[in-house]
Amino acid sequence: MKLTGKVLVAQGGGPTAVINQSLVGGAVLEARKFQQVTKVYGALNGVEGGILNEEFIDLTQETTHNLEVVADTPSSALLSTRVKPTVEKCKEMFKVMKAHDIRYFFYIGGNDSSDTLRIVNNAAEEAKYELRCIHIPKTIDNDLVLNDHTPGFGSAARFVAQAFTGVNLDNRALKGGVYIGVVMGGRHAGFLTASSIIGQKYPPDDGPHLVYLPERAFDINKFLSDVKSVYNRLGGRCIIAVSEGIRDAKGIPILQTLQENLEVDQHGNVQLSGTGALGDLLVKEVKEKLNIPRVRSDTFGYLQRSFIGCVSDVDQHEAREVGEKAAQYAIWNNVDGSIIIKRTGHYSVNYELVPLVEIAGKTKYMPDHFINPEGNHVTDAFRYYVRPLVGSGLPVARRLKAPMAPKLLNKSE
Amino acid sequence: MKLTGKVLVAQGGGPTAVINQSLVGGAVLEARKFQQVTKVYGALNGVEGGILNEEFIDLTQETTHNLEVVADTPSSALLSTRVKPTVEKCKEMFKVMKAHDIRYFFYIGGNDSSDTLRIVNNAAEEAKYELRCIHIPKTIDNDLVLNDHTPGFGSAARFVAQAFTGVNLDNRALKGGVYIGVVMGGRHAGFLTASSIIGQKYPPDDGPHLVYLPERAFDINKFLSDVKSVYNRLGGRCIIAVSEGIRDAKGIPILQTLQENLEVDQHGNVQLSGTGALGDLLVKEVKEKLNIPRVRSDTFGYLQRSFIGCVSDVDQHEAREVGEKAAQYAIWNNVDGSIIIKRTGHYSVNYELVPLVEIAGKTKYMPDHFINPEGNHVTDAFRYYVRPLVGSGLPVARRLKAPMAPKLLNKSE
Repeated sequence: MKLTGKVLVAQGGGPTAVINQSLVGGAVLEARKFQQVTKVYGALNGVEGGILNEEFIDLTQETTHNLEVVADTPSSALLSTRVKPTVEKCKEMFKVMKAHDIRYFFYIGGNDSSDTLRIVNNAAEEAKYELRCIHIPKTIDNDLVLNDHTPGFGSAARFVAQAFTGVNLDNRALKGGVYIGVVMGGRHAGFLTASSIIGQKYPPDDGPHLVYLPERAFDINKFLSDVKSVYNRLGGRCIIAVSEGIRDAKGIPILQTLQENLEVDQHGNVQLSGTGALGDLLVKEVKEKLNIPRVRSDTFGYLQRSFIGCVSDVDQHEAREVGEKAAQYAIWNNVDGSIIIKRTGHYSVNYELVPLVEIAGKTKYMPDHFINPEGNHVTDAFRYYVRPLVGSGLPVARRLKAPMAPKLLNKSE
Repeated sequence: MKLTGKVLVAQGGGPTAVINQSLVGGAVLEARKFQQVTKVYGALNGVEGGILNEEFIDLTQETTHNLEVVADTPSSALLSTRVKPTVEKCKEMFKVMKAHDIRYFFYIGGNDSSDTLRIVNNAAEEAKYELRCIHIPKTIDNDLVLNDHTPGFGSAARFVAQAFTGVNLDNRALKGGVYIGVVMGGRHAGFLTASSIIGQKYPPDDGPHLVYLPERAFDINKFLSDVKSVYNRLGGRCIIAVSEGIRDAKGIPILQTLQENLEVDQHGNVQLSGTGALGDLLVKEVKEKLNIPRVRSDTFGYLQRSFIGCVSDVDQHEAREVGEKAAQYAIWNNVDGSIIIKRTGHYSVNYELVPLVEIAGKTKYMPDHFINPEGNHVTDAFRYYVRPLVGSGLPVARRLKAPMAPKLLNKSE
């Protein structure tokens, strides 16, 4: 009954703060416990390059202690890739695995990874070679279907929350005018941008006062009128969270409508990150059209997914468990599939296994009841949803509360 | 002998992560212990507005516990301003202080604040009114003369260090091409940008591989040749830390040479922060001139000085002590001046008091022995200087160390 052979693990796509929890803390440490596992290999540089070139690091020889400290390190310890292999390459990859007597393949990644696994799995079935394939979820975008949320999202959301908490304090202290924070991870789904609202401790004074998501068409005139309204109401302040993926009514990214010669990746997506252009454009519009003198923009960029030392303990724990579950499902139960996270309480989760095809190539969006009717902020339902995911011990902003002293001179300003 | 009356505290300029340690943890809590102190007032919104309009919060009535938690909150709890008052305004401020029987004035700020204090102090002397004026140092730029370093710098440096540690991991995992991180706080002094090197754990592989500071003239051709050399040596990677204040040989900020209609503040300085333009320009140059496909830039912007939850314990401790020292010098010793931090060991400090004029309007730069001869990196002397300032418990990036598994197929790529 027992399927004896090697385990192979790989990581794909962009890194997260907790992806190594899934890898080494979960899958590797758990897999090393089973007698039928002869070796645990890690494929370097993502699936295609690492597997086709047999670039395998022998994780059986890694010390348990080093695995534990690597688990606490953000980004992909096995290194990664953005390449999604073709069907042909997947079949070649299967041949390499067969040659190395690999019987368990765990792939940590987003929805593309699930599809890669499905193809490799089919190739093995056609060859009547037993190969268990398990997809371990990960993405800061939180856009995998069937999952309540994905490992990596909570820590990135925590970074965004902490950033906006500080931005609030900074802007308030200096009567800082308009501040626009451009948030990554929102090509299609606005979860990460929406998480900026966790920084809002003392509403309506605290920002973000406006939140723009890719789920709603972005209209520059509506945006300007929103900003003007908040700015006047708060006496010269407005803090705005904007997803890098905001789009116009036709679905074209705003960044694309402004800038020529954008890079395009192999999926035909234009490059949205690694440039301050969207923020700078919005600043220009606000300055010129609303005649507001002080307007600033920061583009949070890559810091959100790899900043060391900003991690959600809940995210860390779940990332580890989905890794462990992958090893348990495959080795105990001899099944294939994708691990998903289901919320069972406030706050508790269960892990389940679903067929790979149910995750592959699909995208989850912010549901309507998480977005306010005006399309420029979130609802309390979203606050309730997101708060546990950013973890415990979130730093809190405090204010002085003492009364004002009596004026003696009463000069008018 | 005892000078009986009120204490007034104010905060000026940009916020830091630990400025409220100086304010409430240091000056206010310490001042409240003295019998001759009748009240402790805080001037809201910085010196000019808050004092002239008698906007005083009565900190005598604040609970000790709330003062303690506010001390842990970044940004200026009393709110701040960028306005440097004129001599006339300083004299008016003195009249308000006199009317309120203020006998001790503590001002937490940079080198401009020291000058404001000097003028207020002179006005009091002319009026034969006893008013003790103490400047409490603070700035993320670390550019106050006579100080080994300034409160606020260590925590901002820690943010930059943690950001570059993550950027390294991210860029390495994805063979991420060229990454340019633009660091704030370097109008003239490059200390904060230079602190990016703390993130470099495994040189020469880890970045930042190149560091550009305002202390050295920036030459775009030299920059391109530096980038090319690192990129080729590391097989397609290069991480660069750039100060927002880099200048050409004539001393003109590079940003200014590129962009029209820049905002200018009342000191005649152009706006360097709150825009991604410098990063985007450098990206364009590298892409076009070096023909490198993947080039990204992040501008760290305002996050560096206000991000909540990223603080150096050493910085926190010292910020608190300079606040306490201010109260002690003024109330015990009845003297005026500016508190300075002197390094006395590795790592220990002493606090001293110097005349206000010695700090006012002067700027400290990175000394030559902290910058490498090529002007594109730092020296070990700087590493030794900066490491203790970012505090304990800095998160560490770890790598897998297991050997590679033998190849069985040995296909060439």
